[in-house]
Amino acid sequence: MNSIHASIITIGDELLIGQVIDTNSAYIAQALNSIGVAVKNRIAVGDSKDAIVTALETAAKQSNIIIMTGGLGPTADDITKPLLNEYFGGKLIVHQPTLDHITDIFVNKHKRPMIERNRKQAEVPDVCEVLFNETGTAPGMLFKKDNVYYFSLPGVPHEMRFLTDKHVVPTIQQHFSTKPIIHRTLLTAGLGESFLAEKIADFENALPADIKLAYLPNFGMVRLRLTATGIDENQLKINIDEQFAKLILAVGEYLVTDKDENMEVVVGRLLKEKHQTVSTAESCTGGYIGHLLSKHGGSSQFYTGGIISYDNRIKTEFLDVSDDILHTVGAVSQEAVEQMAKSVREKMNTDYAVSVSGIMGPSGQTDEKPLGMVWIGVANKEKVVSKVFYLRFDRLRNIEVTANQAINLLRLLIINKI
Amino acid sequence: MNSIHASIITIGDELLIGQVIDTNSAYIAQALNSIGVAVKNRIAVGDSKDAIVTALETAAKQSNIIIMTGGLGPTADDITKPLLNEYFGGKLIVHQPTLDHITDIFVNKHKRPMIERNRKQAEVPDVCEVLFNETGTAPGMLFKKDNVYYFSLPGVPHEMRFLTDKHVVPTIQQHFSTKPIIHRTLLTAGLGESFLAEKIADFENALPADIKLAYLPNFGMVRLRLTATGIDENQLKINIDEQFAKLILAVGEYLVTDKDENMEVVVGRLLKEKHQTVSTAESCTGGYIGHLLSKHGGSSQFYTGGIISYDNRIKTEFLDVSDDILHTVGAVSQEAVEQMAKSVREKMNTDYAVSVSGIMGPSGQTDEKPLGMVWIGVANKEKVVSKVFYLRFDRLRNIEVTANQAINLLRLLIINKI
Repeated sequence: MNSIHASIITIGDELLIGQVIDTNSAYIAQALNSIGVAVKNRIAVGDSKDAIVTALETAAKQSNIIIMTGGLGPTADDITKPLLNEYFGGKLIVHQPTLDHITDIFVNKHKRPMIERNRKQAEVPDVCEVLFNETGTAPGMLFKKDNVYYFSLPGVPHEMRFLTDKHVVPTIQQHFSTKPIIHRTLLTAGLGESFLAEKIADFENALPADIKLAYLPNFGMVRLRLTATGIDENQLKINIDEQFAKLILAVGEYLVTDKDENMEVVVGRLLKEKHQTVSTAESCTGGYIGHLLSKHGGSSQFYTGGIISYDNRIKTEFLDVSDDILHTVGAVSQEAVEQMAKSVREKMNTDYAVSVSGIMGPSGQTDEKPLGMVWIGVANKEKVVSKVFYLRFDRLRNIEVTANQAINLLRLLIINKI
Repeated sequence: MNSIHASIITIGDELLIGQVIDTNSAYIAQALNSIGVAVKNRIAVGDSKDAIVTALETAAKQSNIIIMTGGLGPTADDITKPLLNEYFGGKLIVHQPTLDHITDIFVNKHKRPMIERNRKQAEVPDVCEVLFNETGTAPGMLFKKDNVYYFSLPGVPHEMRFLTDKHVVPTIQQHFSTKPIIHRTLLTAGLGESFLAEKIADFENALPADIKLAYLPNFGMVRLRLTATGIDENQLKINIDEQFAKLILAVGEYLVTDKDENMEVVVGRLLKEKHQTVSTAESCTGGYIGHLLSKHGGSSQFYTGGIISYDNRIKTEFLDVSDDILHTVGAVSQEAVEQMAKSVREKMNTDYAVSVSGIMGPSGQTDEKPLGMVWIGVANKEKVVSKVFYLRFDRLRNIEVTANQAINLLRLLIINKI
């Protein structure tokens, strides 16, 4: 096989009944892509021997690297380890460093007695290479058969991430000569997918065959991704950079960032560069804007704080939204969000402020104010600007879209575009 | 084939490079499970003809229902529709109701001209049944071949959800006699997975063969799920209810809820029942607790609002955390969170309050205060209780775990367990 392909197999009934959302696959896929390994497919199967074996056999026909997650826990529904032991014809033996590590966790850290169930986690098939798991009790495992590498990782996300970075990626880099894949991603705002496609049609039609363009739309914000694959990494970089520069020109004023990053990261960087700060006054988003602004490291440099004024009483007492406003135009109004932005900025003494008030659903609408109506306000020392949006999603998605639009409006104020 | 199996195929390069997390599969899997259709596997493939065809052929061998999402947009990387047209031997024709609908969206709603790209979205293979998409511009499609039903849905989540509920589920119920699957799920807190397994070992060992137990751990909170499959739905319900009652007894004081719901939903219900309210004072979680408390409909009945005191100045000015506290024990301290909870409860005049202050990483630790150290406080009129945690995850996960532990501590205060 000339090119290196990987398959990801996630194991667990919870994935097939929709009880949990699989974030592990995305993490592994990113890690593999970054070292030039193309993921051929991702397969999710239940905690069933037949299903896992079928998935392994199918994957081994298509890929030379197979990464499994899940089913390594201490309970009876965790069948991956005995199954792999049988599949690769091994026998279970105690891995002493893992046993020492588990003992340390239970006896020294948790001050709890070790039980047989925990001790069993230190057992591994004698035909595997152990991937030592500093972050948890289930060791990772590597099996090799017919030139295919099989990695088995725990499904607990932070343990899976640790083992991917510490063991999987270095092992693959050491044993396979991977073919370069390069991605360049940018983010646009203000133009829907089809209009954006129209705007950049000439660019897209002139793209060379070895560079692919993908659209990732998200309510008025569209991410565009160029992907190049080839042999000569240096030449690839030159080619994709040339096309990416053209794409940036084609996108024009709708460009938000030429990196694969979210809106709030862009705004955070702008603020940090200017040594400026922002505060928030949130009604309908209930803290989600604050969460976005503070979820990345270093956000204390620009995010000062906020008022979550979920109840109208808090809008009045903490943000000076007058009873008059509440009784005439109401809490979901231009007047209310402008006052909220103005007040929180002054009271928290920040350079900028963002405010939102809206009807996220599933109820709360009136004759004049439909479900999904939301006012967003942004302020700096000189002015307050507000804008109304009419969203048409479910509650959670309305909250997410509102928060992103609010942060985009803040961005436009920071760069003097509104 | 006696039993009804489904395969879910998600299409899009973004799924294989880890750029987006697939939430669609979980939604579809839930919907299918709720009507007794077992999902056999989920397969994610790229925007490549070969990969999609291989996935379709593999799935058709294992399942009688195949649900595809993605690749139906208006841009060149969307290849699902022409591919299915060719695969099922059709020709593309205009679907007039869809064209009228798209025209209405662009001309009347968006006040934008229709372009050819949009018009093309109304074309469908003449061999499919159109699943009319009121929520967007890409119609869903249903193909039937050799007793297998192939559904093709857009990848945009709210459109996929609409079509699943409105068309996919009713069509399956009409054409297949599905075999009942029943799940019962409960949530525990306060005991790790292996200790919980030990506690309920007798229950688990005595479980009948047709009822399966699964553990879904999440940092000290473990969800337990019983699954029963069989023929006679009434008998199944009786059996699983009987076992579920035993499981509840076995779990004992660690039970949080006997429903498949999150911690914040439990707390919201407790507060609504008592007609009581809560406010929040968040430092390191930056609004995430407020978001959890307000993300579900009806939360304005119990969530009043909060202060996000990201900067220490806000802790002092809005929450009366004294300079003395900040300069001696610091912002991440029992004294600080207790004052924060007390102040926000009084100022927002709520029955309860919850507060957090911690070091979420990736930096900010000191010799005395390691990364992941977080103080959580909860207050009511009578008392303030606080607890320290030492987390060991990445920043985002630390934020999520902190918020969930804070809401759990609030729950324990509400039910007088602390």
